[in-house]
Amino acid sequence: MERKCVGVDVGGTTVKIGVLSEQGKILSKWEIPTRTQEQGRHILPDVAESILSYFRGHGIVAEDVVGVGIGIPGPVTGDGYTEVSVNLGWKGVYVERELAALLGGISVRAANDANVAAVGEMWQGGAKGYRNIMLYTLGTGVGGGVVVGGKPVSGALGMGGEIGHILVNTEEKERCNCGNHGCLEQYASATGIVKEMRRTLGGNTAPCVLRGKEAFSCKEVLDAAKAGDRLALDTVRRCMRYLALSMQYVTHITNPEIFLIGGGVSKAGEFLLDIIREYYLGFTVMAVEKTPVGLAALGNDAGMYGAARLVLGL
Amino acid sequence: MERKCVGVDVGGTTVKIGVLSEQGKILSKWEIPTRTQEQGRHILPDVAESILSYFRGHGIVAEDVVGVGIGIPGPVTGDGYTEVSVNLGWKGVYVERELAALLGGISVRAANDANVAAVGEMWQGGAKGYRNIMLYTLGTGVGGGVVVGGKPVSGALGMGGEIGHILVNTEEKERCNCGNHGCLEQYASATGIVKEMRRTLGGNTAPCVLRGKEAFSCKEVLDAAKAGDRLALDTVRRCMRYLALSMQYVTHITNPEIFLIGGGVSKAGEFLLDIIREYYLGFTVMAVEKTPVGLAALGNDAGMYGAARLVLGL
Repeated sequence: MERKCVGVDVGGTTVKIGVLSEQGKILSKWEIPTRTQEQGRHILPDVAESILSYFRGHGIVAEDVVGVGIGIPGPVTGDGYTEVSVNLGWKGVYVERELAALLGGISVRAANDANVAAVGEMWQGGAKGYRNIMLYTLGTGVGGGVVVGGKPVSGALGMGGEIGHILVNTEEKERCNCGNHGCLEQYASATGIVKEMRRTLGGNTAPCVLRGKEAFSCKEVLDAAKAGDRLALDTVRRCMRYLALSMQYVTHITNPEIFLIGGGVSKAGEFLLDIIREYYLGFTVMAVEKTPVGLAALGNDAGMYGAARLVLGL
Repeated sequence: MERKCVGVDVGGTTVKIGVLSEQGKILSKWEIPTRTQEQGRHILPDVAESILSYFRGHGIVAEDVVGVGIGIPGPVTGDGYTEVSVNLGWKGVYVERELAALLGGISVRAANDANVAAVGEMWQGGAKGYRNIMLYTLGTGVGGGVVVGGKPVSGALGMGGEIGHILVNTEEKERCNCGNHGCLEQYASATGIVKEMRRTLGGNTAPCVLRGKEAFSCKEVLDAAKAGDRLALDTVRRCMRYLALSMQYVTHITNPEIFLIGGGVSKAGEFLLDIIREYYLGFTVMAVEKTPVGLAALGNDAGMYGAARLVLGL
């Protein structure tokens, strides 16, 4: 039987599990709920039971399995330990050791979910063939994955790739969730774009299709901008300018081969990328060649792919 | 005979050459002039001849030598090729291949000089024992070396660690040498500190020990600041605030275990570090633990150490 690897992406509400071939083909995938009650103590047993149950149902034995990779929403140290994961209710969990024991000794590799997603995009997604990448995930918040020489960079304190809280505006008066002022997440997340749109509307009286609406989504802002609404376009451009500014920083630190933009906000596609590219070109005067900016391709499956890839060696 | 490694640090005016033990002890070191005329075509032959002459004089044969490492002021690709080095007059030089041929086949490893200096500090200097570091070299310009997992990060276009041209002030009107506006080098280099001091003096009429002087050095500004001169201190603080801001960026991208500050400006010592630490703490709200900030320890020998270290494997 061809050997298999398993990718697990643990989110705050669901856990995605996939069984993949060593070539990166998904053979099966499913979801289970994330039981965060009781400090999340059921999560790893649930994951193990779900995987073992699949194995039993398909006549898969331990020898057929290269290993199980798992992405965790929180910092993970090199030996697979998570000091804290707010979303899971975890404090001090030895993920690799505990899950391996629950799986009867199958090899387990754990890493931060954003880093794992970057590995996934590098393996089977928008950065296929590259070894040095920077992935931005623009969702409710802003996540990031830095890969250097094929390996995700988690850093000394697990802050590597925590690009959502890089400072892009030291003049900002409003506070970010993290307690700082002027983090990228305050502008380039879905939440940030909506908030900036409200600011724009409050700051002038020019016409705008969103004016007078009690509530609107990030998608509505992006759609209005695409349709040429002046204030919406100004807002989106201001937000993406901050994103491009952070890309200038990244270029002067790790200088990736490619930038990938993923997450819900990236569904605005080439319209958004063109704005990002325009500002990025303006900011990176020194670089003769310009780093390409592409779209992440795996969507919500990136973490599952990347987690599976972990056990194949990086 | 114990095996030796050779470290070569090529600067714009002199080449530093050192013969080291595998344990990192300098057995001998000397300098030769850098002949930059004729597109720098004499540089590698001069280096080779100088090394071979030392070997002959000391009865050292090829088998006694692990290899020769060389740091180049300019981007160097993974296979030891330099597209351009402005300081050396080079265009398209296969450094590793050419120097190895001139040395009769002794193994050669080449890398960018700032990255090499970071490796040196990690091996025998201020970052001994660490594997993830960020080195700032505050001299006439601002250089940088990023090391992740023990390996220097040169990046896709050799811009990795080019921290001097990271954007720290998008409001800056004056142009940096690179053509951009608001690069770190415009504030945190010796040249930048002097320029900022002039700005401060021009912008107000408060007393200052440097007022009325036709010319003053960066050291004079730092000394005045240390002695409590208000305007000089304000200036140094403003400059170091930008440096600390760039450290916030680095923390959220590669999250090093330690920051090292080297170069002529760093001779101001703990006085300077305290200012940097104060701003860095203020900027990194999210990091529970704070990354230490230390002084580079090897001075002008860092490149020589690091180059020698290259051939021992990273």
